[in-house]
Amino acid sequence: MYIEKVKKNMNLPETVRIFDTTLRDGEQTPGVAITVDEKIGIAKKLDQLGVDVIEVGFPAASEGEKEAAKAILDLGLNAKVCGLARVLKNDLDAVLDSDVDYIHTFIGTSPLHREYKLKMSQEQILDKAVEAVEYVKDHGVLVEFSAEDATRTEFPFLSEIYQSVEDAGADYINVPDTVGVMVPSAMHWLISKLNKDINIPISVHCHDDFGLAVANSLSSVEAGAQQVHATINGLGERAGNASLEEVVMALITRYDLPLDIRTSQLVNLSDFVSRITGVRMPPNKAIVGENAFAHEAGIHVHGVLEKAETYEPITPEMVGHTRRIVLGKHTGANALRSKLDEYGIEMSEKQFCTVYDQIKDLGDKGKKVTDADLKAIAVTVLGRAKKETVKLEGFAVMTGENVMPTATVKLRIHEELKTASKTGVGPVDAAINAIHSLVSETTDIELKEYNIEAITGGTNALAEVFVVMGDMEGNHATGRSTREDIVMASVEAVLDSINKILMVK
Amino acid sequence: MYIEKVKKNMNLPETVRIFDTTLRDGEQTPGVAITVDEKIGIAKKLDQLGVDVIEVGFPAASEGEKEAAKAILDLGLNAKVCGLARVLKNDLDAVLDSDVDYIHTFIGTSPLHREYKLKMSQEQILDKAVEAVEYVKDHGVLVEFSAEDATRTEFPFLSEIYQSVEDAGADYINVPDTVGVMVPSAMHWLISKLNKDINIPISVHCHDDFGLAVANSLSSVEAGAQQVHATINGLGERAGNASLEEVVMALITRYDLPLDIRTSQLVNLSDFVSRITGVRMPPNKAIVGENAFAHEAGIHVHGVLEKAETYEPITPEMVGHTRRIVLGKHTGANALRSKLDEYGIEMSEKQFCTVYDQIKDLGDKGKKVTDADLKAIAVTVLGRAKKETVKLEGFAVMTGENVMPTATVKLRIHEELKTASKTGVGPVDAAINAIHSLVSETTDIELKEYNIEAITGGTNALAEVFVVMGDMEGNHATGRSTREDIVMASVEAVLDSINKILMVK
Repeated sequence: MYIEKVKKNMNLPETVRIFDTTLRDGEQTPGVAITVDEKIGIAKKLDQLGVDVIEVGFPAASEGEKEAAKAILDLGLNAKVCGLARVLKNDLDAVLDSDVDYIHTFIGTSPLHREYKLKMSQEQILDKAVEAVEYVKDHGVLVEFSAEDATRTEFPFLSEIYQSVEDAGADYINVPDTVGVMVPSAMHWLISKLNKDINIPISVHCHDDFGLAVANSLSSVEAGAQQVHATINGLGERAGNASLEEVVMALITRYDLPLDIRTSQLVNLSDFVSRITGVRMPPNKAIVGENAFAHEAGIHVHGVLEKAETYEPITPEMVGHTRRIVLGKHTGANALRSKLDEYGIEMSEKQFCTVYDQIKDLGDKGKKVTDADLKAIAVTVLGRAKKETVKLEGFAVMTGENVMPTATVKLRIHEELKTASKTGVGPVDAAINAIHSLVSETTDIELKEYNIEAITGGTNALAEVFVVMGDMEGNHATGRSTREDIVMASVEAVLDSINKILMVK
Repeated sequence: MYIEKVKKNMNLPETVRIFDTTLRDGEQTPGVAITVDEKIGIAKKLDQLGVDVIEVGFPAASEGEKEAAKAILDLGLNAKVCGLARVLKNDLDAVLDSDVDYIHTFIGTSPLHREYKLKMSQEQILDKAVEAVEYVKDHGVLVEFSAEDATRTEFPFLSEIYQSVEDAGADYINVPDTVGVMVPSAMHWLISKLNKDINIPISVHCHDDFGLAVANSLSSVEAGAQQVHATINGLGERAGNASLEEVVMALITRYDLPLDIRTSQLVNLSDFVSRITGVRMPPNKAIVGENAFAHEAGIHVHGVLEKAETYEPITPEMVGHTRRIVLGKHTGANALRSKLDEYGIEMSEKQFCTVYDQIKDLGDKGKKVTDADLKAIAVTVLGRAKKETVKLEGFAVMTGENVMPTATVKLRIHEELKTASKTGVGPVDAAINAIHSLVSETTDIELKEYNIEAITGGTNALAEVFVVMGDMEGNHATGRSTREDIVMASVEAVLDSINKILMVK
């Protein structure tokens, strides 16, 4: 609502083109490399999302980059396919060779880039830029020109070079905040002023060194920019580029700009790119993070249960996310009652208070509280808990080079001693197979999920194993154990989980 | 530099107080719980960093929260210690009981909060707020008042409630963008307008639902706000709060505001909080991320080697970080030459081209390229590579309940067969101990780091083990292996690493 107070001062365009550079600047993320096939997979999904331009790479950099550009062009996507090139004939030819319909060419313009990197004068740089734009236009291809490090370039020279490339036939100019030095108010000043000198559409490309890439992009749009460069998950050099999911959702929901983007695919696409690049987003990442629509604090959960808008700016469905109510030390009585209702567990007020205190206590001890923990606590308080039904009485496992990993387990199940030996692909797999063979004689509990938290340190570091087991009736329980021996930790976690399910059966 | 063009329009304060809420709003991150001891550890480090206020928790929420508030107060820090409370007597008493010198109290003011959560009229809310502020001032304690969801509250009522609490003796008013709905230009409008009605200092508390928390905080400061709420790593409800490290570095380096913050501790503190909360920052996190000062692309590395400022807005040292040059498919010839020089490896131009092509090729295949990989490729191209010096000829390990984990390893070292058996805390530890006992007879290579990538899926998922070994001369090499059997993967990774070191020795 407060944005309405300032909208009249904005020079908003009718819509904003989304220029995706996940496959180019995003892939330049140090340590990230994407194969040609993976690039094709991402490009298809970006096209389904509805971005306007896909920058596919820097064809002069390697054979793989050239191949990727050609392969993506062959997909016949709706999005325009763009390749990056310095203002050098070799670079431009590498892009032209791949037959793409759009070239993004650039040269540094700031004093730092002129003096230390390029060792060229303003005049030489301007000539090179104009020459490159003319060369590309002679080939009948769209061209977007970037003055690299524009935001540290003197305004008169910056405006002059942009005007010159416009005269040479450039279709778009792009203003890169290459090192992320801008703040929104300064970005607004710069784009407004350039907008007076330039007649072709202005694009911006912001870096996130101070966490301001998205804000600087939006502020540029307020000043009249018609295109924004962005990457999925904000990938890119150093702290990365403007995050596409944040830019898109802000433009649509804050500025009411009509973007033709299928926003409900954003979470899925973010996950897809995370898996391919190995760059995981933290739970507190805006829009797509695991916690973006999760609530734990009592006050918040109470509000969300009454009306979700009290603590959510948009619906999770809009971006393909789901709402989560999380239990923990900040859980209020309202959230707890709602969870117990959900499980159909009824109890007296006194019993409820005991459960409530135990949940808080776990939280104070730094423990996460899962739904299964809550159930186990509740049935214990209700006096319905059975004792440990499955107990480990003996265990041995061996593995090695040319040794079939083999485990032997002795369990006491309902007071009866049973033994089984099984093999597996590794010692943990063998051990779990042996336990399962014994337990499956009496129940239908199966392993649903097995996780080891990343271990860092030495080989004697503690391994934390977390499992989820479930039965046919839909009962699920987590189990966890932390030991120096990863095999023993796995066995204990599985038994912990089995006993929790048997407790509520 | 462009910020100078707009500074004259800003209403910047002389300095900005940093109100840290990592231990309160940050701890409300769903799934995060911090023990009292951990809270004490973080509070000490925040105080060393130099923040002005530490909000330690919500004492009414649990016994642990109360205990933490008391314990942190007892440390006698320089920072003020603040506790959160609703405008309810019970909540306020819980904070007053812990003897802190500062209370942050709040009540929802927006139509959504009034109607659905509080079911109270504007008048009732205003009375409760004033009553709470008066109650706290009667106890001689500093009080900061927040109108929760201020940014979705009608301006007249918002201004009225803030003016009323000012009249009641409040020391600060805080404007929370509770659901992160604001954009910087709207935030600037709101804070400027409130600043005309209010005489006590204005504080802001921004959420990051659209990735704009830092920008909205800075824009508030441009409008005259004198305090910013922030959390380490931007922790907090949903997408979290404004990231302290980003706010601080932007205020100091973009706005030239004199903050008394020891910025070189930022990376260390971010790591510390990550480890305690389990919330890891991605490599592209601004200021503190692993890649914040890393460079891979040829053009960037070339620039940085000539002069770091070409691609870095501030020095890594300023925030306690280090610069990294990363090898990969985007690596240019300049970066590669500089790395080879660093290792004192000389080669002909033809040999150099072969190494260069192999690095690019690894990148196109989606592989990360470590420094050790480069060395191994280089010595192979130079024909100096020795063949696999240490080879696994036999291996067996066992573990179990009441079984001492034991491993036997047979290695061929320099064509000589050797066998050793060792125990350990687990099967991996035993295996590595056995290998080490054999290898240490001829070299001084030791395990420096052992990592297992998190495993998600089933017990037959592939385990990826990554190790770093090193010798006394400072040679370090990575080794990695991916297998279904975690023990075998560990053995292979260690041998891979040992052979790489022996190759360059």
